[in-house]
Amino acid sequence: MTANLRSSLRLPCLCVVMAMALLTVSCSQASRQQVSLVVTGGDVVTMDASRRVLSPGAVAVNGRDIVAVGTPEEIARQFAASETIEAAGHVVLPGLVNTHTHAPMVMYRGLADDLALMDWLQKFIFPAEAKTVSPEMVRVGTRLAALEMIQSGTTTFADMYYFEEEIARATKAAGLRGVLGETIIGFPVADAKTPADALKRTEAFMREFAGDDLITAVPAPHSPYTVDEPTLRAIRELADRYKVPILIHLAETEDEVNIIREKHGMSPTAWLDSLGFLRPDVVAAHCVWLTDDDIAIMKRAGAAVSHNPESNMKLASGVAPVPKYLAAGITVGLGTDGAASNNDLDMFGAMRQTAFLHKLASRDPRAVPATAVLEMATIGGARALGLDKRVGSLEAGKRADLIVVAMNGARQTPMYNPVSHLVYVARGDDVRTTVVNGKVLMRDRQMRTLDERVVLADARALAKKVREAVASTR
Amino acid sequence: MTANLRSSLRLPCLCVVMAMALLTVSCSQASRQQVSLVVTGGDVVTMDASRRVLSPGAVAVNGRDIVAVGTPEEIARQFAASETIEAAGHVVLPGLVNTHTHAPMVMYRGLADDLALMDWLQKFIFPAEAKTVSPEMVRVGTRLAALEMIQSGTTTFADMYYFEEEIARATKAAGLRGVLGETIIGFPVADAKTPADALKRTEAFMREFAGDDLITAVPAPHSPYTVDEPTLRAIRELADRYKVPILIHLAETEDEVNIIREKHGMSPTAWLDSLGFLRPDVVAAHCVWLTDDDIAIMKRAGAAVSHNPESNMKLASGVAPVPKYLAAGITVGLGTDGAASNNDLDMFGAMRQTAFLHKLASRDPRAVPATAVLEMATIGGARALGLDKRVGSLEAGKRADLIVVAMNGARQTPMYNPVSHLVYVARGDDVRTTVVNGKVLMRDRQMRTLDERVVLADARALAKKVREAVASTR
Repeated sequence: MTANLRSSLRLPCLCVVMAMALLTVSCSQASRQQVSLVVTGGDVVTMDASRRVLSPGAVAVNGRDIVAVGTPEEIARQFAASETIEAAGHVVLPGLVNTHTHAPMVMYRGLADDLALMDWLQKFIFPAEAKTVSPEMVRVGTRLAALEMIQSGTTTFADMYYFEEEIARATKAAGLRGVLGETIIGFPVADAKTPADALKRTEAFMREFAGDDLITAVPAPHSPYTVDEPTLRAIRELADRYKVPILIHLAETEDEVNIIREKHGMSPTAWLDSLGFLRPDVVAAHCVWLTDDDIAIMKRAGAAVSHNPESNMKLASGVAPVPKYLAAGITVGLGTDGAASNNDLDMFGAMRQTAFLHKLASRDPRAVPATAVLEMATIGGARALGLDKRVGSLEAGKRADLIVVAMNGARQTPMYNPVSHLVYVARGDDVRTTVVNGKVLMRDRQMRTLDERVVLADARALAKKVREAVASTR
Repeated sequence: MTANLRSSLRLPCLCVVMAMALLTVSCSQASRQQVSLVVTGGDVVTMDASRRVLSPGAVAVNGRDIVAVGTPEEIARQFAASETIEAAGHVVLPGLVNTHTHAPMVMYRGLADDLALMDWLQKFIFPAEAKTVSPEMVRVGTRLAALEMIQSGTTTFADMYYFEEEIARATKAAGLRGVLGETIIGFPVADAKTPADALKRTEAFMREFAGDDLITAVPAPHSPYTVDEPTLRAIRELADRYKVPILIHLAETEDEVNIIREKHGMSPTAWLDSLGFLRPDVVAAHCVWLTDDDIAIMKRAGAAVSHNPESNMKLASGVAPVPKYLAAGITVGLGTDGAASNNDLDMFGAMRQTAFLHKLASRDPRAVPATAVLEMATIGGARALGLDKRVGSLEAGKRADLIVVAMNGARQTPMYNPVSHLVYVARGDDVRTTVVNGKVLMRDRQMRTLDERVVLADARALAKKVREAVASTR
């Protein structure tokens, strides 16, 4: 009886359900939100607070912002996109954050290697810089660096060099996000005769880019051993006034530590701290030679570390105690350093090396696992640069800085775990598509903001001058 | 007067010169030797005894052999080619020699990472191997590995695994050169219940491929701590009889050294030597924990070292004292080890890591320069495997094993020195064309011997079984 009743009810019920379903579909299609971009079908590694990985997932972008992250079905139901990127066989993740480089130094890539530090600097880098650093050189070099960064999945980079306003203009034109530091150093350089000149240039640069959505213009005192106390105090005051980060090299080499200890009777970290210089807005590059006391100072100050394993290895500087930084809860980002000491700007290389180096140094294969490395290269780096509210993870409301990485070639097959593959297998060349601030800068390896042939031709023409500059001083 | 005389002589002289030139051109064209392949216009890094680099250069190949190396003009004058590869903007060099891997283990790539060695082995690698190693698995795995190696510029590899005859067949079909070792180990494995069984299998395998131009079939005792003395003596005798190399793991971990010291009262190296096992035909993989006495033994014995820096770092095994090996004049080749501990087979990664690691470990940026690294990856590796008369450099009379590497992208611009770029900038993905034994296996990234889609689909299907095997034992 009950069965019969059910049976008799089934047909009309089914009709009602179907009618409602049709209604729902047409309503939802009618009400789908129009957005500028949807990336769908890949494994989406969000790097959000719960480290959610959607396999597969999708990201909806409108204008400069991420509006939703969900399953492909959820996103398709909610959004209609002007441009759709199918990402099956790929991993979608936040764009990588390079927390330390000198972009125009791509022009000195491979100019000299395998030399003692002083020979390298004095016979090659300094003569090349003395004769070739100019507004034109930093424009050409930054365009080349931007091309390489976009092609290898870096969407935000922190830079320290000369004529930084030119670097900022080239960066903005390429569509990249940058925390760009005008170098302030205690001897005459290409764009400033004195630290006072450099400070003036820096403030003008900061004013030019105040409020810019892509560019954060900041001061970059070179290091504790090349900038004097009054200048460091003035820089601290400048950063406080404009509320921007400070980029600085810190304790890269043992020599530097010895110089500061002799001069000030304390470590470089302790000395900076004694000046009130170390705050949460400081990004200290390298931090190879920090003692446990220095680590406690950094933690208390809330300052961030930029770890550059490849440069530290190639220049034989040493091993930064990264597991200690992480254990202390210090914010750590990754960097490539300049291409003169790397010799590329590939953040995937920096990730792999970070994992490898600290397993070796700690004699523990569990040290600095892939998840920790990927954090440093994305949300950690964003936090170091004070940009973690805007970028570093794929979440609704954040800026749409994301990359699409191919995982369907022989080298990536099979894939058991996308995070492992991002750190241990992927290379910059696997990046297919790069999006910054919602704008597609490269799609399927086709550049949209830079003319690759022009950029390379300009760089090759300039390289001839670099070669001559070095040849004439040897 | 003299000037007038010269002037009056000029016209007829010029006529004679022109006539002779025409004669020479037509004669030389008529007499140009027909060859199968010419690669021309790139920077040719020969790795010959004088380490000649031709910028630009050209290589003429006929059948399996290199017939000439010279300037593009010289080669064009002498040879007419059936197939010509224009290599401007590229570097041409000997194919890379991977002296240590376990090819089918690409199937376990990224299956588990960041674990203590025993957890990694017992929870993942051993269960996966116990349930999945089979003739079918090594065929599928070797095809995937061969695809990755051809795509990344490896032309010769040394292998140690099970069902090695299947690996040899797949290697030969792919067109790669291999020194392939059937594993002999003191406990039951997939293809042999006892060392005696394994020895029998090994000899049958060696007979099958005796005299093969691409495959050298050899015995591969796993290590001093997993193979007993009678078996090692039998292997020594077998290698002597067939005049082939022996592949073995040696002193990879400190634990291994301690085990052998407890058992035999001496180091693994000294113990092998005491058995008369160490000879110039032995290729010892890893050699991380050799003492100065061990190094003297290796030198006296003439045995070769296969250095695997990435695996040694990822598994936290330690740093092999490579600068000491080089200083002692020991033959050193490079290896990737299996993709389960790397996680790829890219020899460019092994090169870069070798340079970086030893600069760091010796605290000297001059240590193990790019030239030394490139030697290890080419002629050094060939020498280690007893193949240096045939491969490892580009010279007339040698087998034509060569690769063409793109150097014209953003990441490689500018290029001041091709050898620096090969070690510090190039990646496997930059390899455009791979030639082995005169046969073009890949041209402009198009595979000629393997069907990429089939190889990847087979690997993905097998990966499901690997995933299940691991899931069911946890």
